[in-house]
Amino acid sequence: MFKVSVYVTPKRGVADPQGAVIERALPALGHHGVTQVRVGRYLTLEVPGDDVAQVREAVDDMCRKLLANPIIEDYWFEVTPAGEGA
Amino acid sequence: MFKVSVYVTPKRGVADPQGAVIERALPALGHHGVTQVRVGRYLTLEVPGDDVAQVREAVDDMCRKLLANPIIEDYWFEVTPAGEGA
Repeated sequence: MFKVSVYVTPKRGVADPQGAVIERALPALGHHGVTQVRVGRYLTLEVPGDDVAQVREAVDDMCRKLLANPIIEDYWFEVTPAGEGA
Repeated sequence: MFKVSVYVTPKRGVADPQGAVIERALPALGHHGVTQVRVGRYLTLEVPGDDVAQVREAVDDMCRKLLANPIIEDYWFEVTPAGEGA
């Protein structure tokens, strides 16, 4: 069993409406000059298996098919044996 | 200027419909036994300032007021001086 953290972010150059809305809203809250706001996803999951290479391959397949849209999003992930911290 | 990464996750015990949908969809893609799927957000932003403590305080305020919903979500963040890697 492995704990997996997946990061999904809009590719550079792809419009990020959520990020744009946040950037425009921050000055009204007193936070001026914040730039480059980009909103992605952070997923955690537990994947069965004994072999880290097989688990990495499985997670990459999940990312390509379901967790991310590789056309407009980048993704990467971290795989940790369950029981060794987060 | 600091580069900031913000993580926002549903609190333990709070329903996560997106995670549930993913968990139910994975077996049809050939990935069996995946559990504990939770979907959060991963934001990156650039915050002006010279003092890391002040920037951390500002980002915490942004999280409480806009980036996260502290009632149902946990958040944490990393602050790195711009220019020192990601």
